[in-house]
Amino acid sequence: MATITEECLRNIEAIIVNKKRILQRREDLFSYSFDASFGTHLPELVLQPISTDEVVGVVKLANLYKIPLYPRGRGTSLSGGPLPVNGGIVLDFSLWKDKLIIDPDDSIAVVSPGVLTADINAKANEFGFMYPPDPSSAHVSTIGGNLAENSGGPRGLKYGVTKDYVIGLEVVTPEGEIIRTGGRTIKNVTGYDLTKLIVGSEGTLGIITEAILKLIPKPIATKTALVLFDDLVDSGHAISRILSSGILPSKMEIMDQACIIAVEEYKPLGLPTDVEAILLIELDGHPYSIEEEMKKVKSTCLAVGAREVIVAENDEEANELWKARKLVSPAIVKIKPTKISEDATVPRSKIPDMFKKLKEIKETHDINLVVFGHAGDGNLHPNIIADQRDTEEMKRVELAVEEIFKAAIELGGTLSGEHGIGIMKSPFMEMELGTKGLEMMKRIKMAWDPNNILNPGKVFPEPGQRLVLHNG
Amino acid sequence: MATITEECLRNIEAIIVNKKRILQRREDLFSYSFDASFGTHLPELVLQPISTDEVVGVVKLANLYKIPLYPRGRGTSLSGGPLPVNGGIVLDFSLWKDKLIIDPDDSIAVVSPGVLTADINAKANEFGFMYPPDPSSAHVSTIGGNLAENSGGPRGLKYGVTKDYVIGLEVVTPEGEIIRTGGRTIKNVTGYDLTKLIVGSEGTLGIITEAILKLIPKPIATKTALVLFDDLVDSGHAISRILSSGILPSKMEIMDQACIIAVEEYKPLGLPTDVEAILLIELDGHPYSIEEEMKKVKSTCLAVGAREVIVAENDEEANELWKARKLVSPAIVKIKPTKISEDATVPRSKIPDMFKKLKEIKETHDINLVVFGHAGDGNLHPNIIADQRDTEEMKRVELAVEEIFKAAIELGGTLSGEHGIGIMKSPFMEMELGTKGLEMMKRIKMAWDPNNILNPGKVFPEPGQRLVLHNG
Repeated sequence: MATITEECLRNIEAIIVNKKRILQRREDLFSYSFDASFGTHLPELVLQPISTDEVVGVVKLANLYKIPLYPRGRGTSLSGGPLPVNGGIVLDFSLWKDKLIIDPDDSIAVVSPGVLTADINAKANEFGFMYPPDPSSAHVSTIGGNLAENSGGPRGLKYGVTKDYVIGLEVVTPEGEIIRTGGRTIKNVTGYDLTKLIVGSEGTLGIITEAILKLIPKPIATKTALVLFDDLVDSGHAISRILSSGILPSKMEIMDQACIIAVEEYKPLGLPTDVEAILLIELDGHPYSIEEEMKKVKSTCLAVGAREVIVAENDEEANELWKARKLVSPAIVKIKPTKISEDATVPRSKIPDMFKKLKEIKETHDINLVVFGHAGDGNLHPNIIADQRDTEEMKRVELAVEEIFKAAIELGGTLSGEHGIGIMKSPFMEMELGTKGLEMMKRIKMAWDPNNILNPGKVFPEPGQRLVLHNG
Repeated sequence: MATITEECLRNIEAIIVNKKRILQRREDLFSYSFDASFGTHLPELVLQPISTDEVVGVVKLANLYKIPLYPRGRGTSLSGGPLPVNGGIVLDFSLWKDKLIIDPDDSIAVVSPGVLTADINAKANEFGFMYPPDPSSAHVSTIGGNLAENSGGPRGLKYGVTKDYVIGLEVVTPEGEIIRTGGRTIKNVTGYDLTKLIVGSEGTLGIITEAILKLIPKPIATKTALVLFDDLVDSGHAISRILSSGILPSKMEIMDQACIIAVEEYKPLGLPTDVEAILLIELDGHPYSIEEEMKKVKSTCLAVGAREVIVAENDEEANELWKARKLVSPAIVKIKPTKISEDATVPRSKIPDMFKKLKEIKETHDINLVVFGHAGDGNLHPNIIADQRDTEEMKRVELAVEEIFKAAIELGGTLSGEHGIGIMKSPFMEMELGTKGLEMMKRIKMAWDPNNILNPGKVFPEPGQRLVLHNG
């Protein structure tokens, strides 16, 4: 691991001339040593660039001196995306002046990396458009981070994920060159799709300094239902039946019994704690059509054995129903302080099997496991609730997480639906991709970043690397 | 350029044991020497593999002996995709047994490379689903070719292109290894998105032997309008206004006056030949909502100066209206035998500017130019009608084509919206991508295919390469 020499620092000061944007004090560095996942890793230096030219200068220096570079948005990653695991420099984009331009004629938004994702959608709404990707962190996470990790969210079922809305990028390559990928047109087949290669590459292939995002018309209306199931398996059938009946809900979220109980203990909403699952279904579109579709949803759910279907009559009632889902995360951390949030994803038809597997894993390893998530696209969020200080418990958690990954892959699924690999899942990459599949990815990394300076230690496992969550 | 030795041929015969699937006679080879673009290039050998194992064997040999490999579907490419420009071996997938499985529970189709694209949509329809990408060649082109070129079509405006529906691939790498990318889940962020890198890479990064495609619910109803504009610029305004009013039509096609005249001379439909443009607009969705949307479309068009809006009352009338658009291609080749079909694409708001530029180019170079295409997404099809035997005319055509590309890029657009680069547009790649952008693509090619055996001579320009359409 390279250390930043005096000479190098002087060169950095020639690029970032405002010394206030060069952080070296230990207490400052500490703020950049963690994210929403595990572990703390101190960088040697934090830089706060405010222009593409500054990024170019820093990247060129880092490449010359072989210093690891870790781009960072707001640090909400659940997979360790921005963690400076090899020390080096963190690039913090928080001081970069927000650029957020909506062009209604081309139905696009042009954004700088530090813009909050929710602000993009809010601004698009003003013009009658929508930016669909809605990770639950949207109000606190930046589009830069969303682009790096290819964030998803509940609307993924109908509208896809971040990648599906990026049509152009300005990127600084690992050698400090500026390239522009894609552009302002929705159709573009000129050469390889570098846009979709870079989005989701977790900051390992380039630093995104601007993005052009596709917007779509905002749906006129939405309608929400909360469905109670005595039997979890029935909820799986309801999902399949609805989705093969010609209806594509904008959201389709599931909560298992453990979630429901946790919510009721945290903030009583009057949910029945004896049901095995709750489905929250949102339809969007023309008021006439969603009215008709909701009738079909209701009868389908009842036909497969739902106990009750509660349909919101207006937006206020809908918000009331969504409270149940929104309270899950705050509720479960009341049980124990440490939340290990996974996003292993299975083909939609395998949701009941995955639930069965998760139940087995929970019992075998004696862990506190709750399951909620985006049921419509098979993107479940098994969350393990534990106490990080309890080394023995954390070892059981590690084994359980490993088995969750194995189960998802055995069922034809994937390690990660929307959180990314980072350091949390890299030890399991080969299990899903095979030696050759992983190698083909590595070849791209090596061809683009021969000195391995961009976000090193992520995505690709180190030889013999294993998941470690315990401190002992 | 390597020649296939006797030894190499014996090795091939050990892989493709049925000699009927090894074609060597000149008359057989000739059938594989052209596609729907320009030029004839004889391969040395044509192989007709019927399994992934055979492909693996052939690719390994080709890599060993450094023989160019040219995968081929039905040869409908408009950019020279399958042309064996360096000789070598053509891999013809036409004898591969069709695999076309619809899994309604996961809303996916699993297909082999030789399946006709229209058959996928037809089969999906039986289950209430739709496979949206609809290149006009869908009834004669294979999904393998569509995947290689990332084909578009009229529905691209609302539904996107081929890439947007591919979630998993089986691929034989340029070194003959089998990898599986993505899978059966809609969300997948495990490592780099090799799926979307390979789709649209025009057969230069791997040979696709199986694909998993995402299906969506088939819309209940459609509604079509034909709109007449005295002024071409007004049609551009209509497009912008409709798309920023919250309506996303499933199709939005434009025909200029030259097209209309050609159609009326070819097969009189009673279209007024004194209008400057016709827009064909199709809405899909719930019958109630499209009824309401169509009213809005009509009033918007009239407000910006449309002469008349003809709304089809039923599917039969709609088919009648679409005839105008469908007859354009057969009509224009009656004028002169050679059709140079471009797909330069501009941001939607630049369509009027692009029309102006095209008019200038037409006059400057004294060429026969008609324009139609997918107006909603800026993907125009300027078609030059000429006679290939007229060397002097073809030289003017070359200059005109070059200027079309320049115009598109100057307006913030791209060389190709849906036909691909192939050999037809490779000389212009750097103009759009810049030296560095092109280099980053090349690095991937070199990292994956160090011996440059997969579809060599495509996408990347040879030093000093220029567009040549004339024979003299």
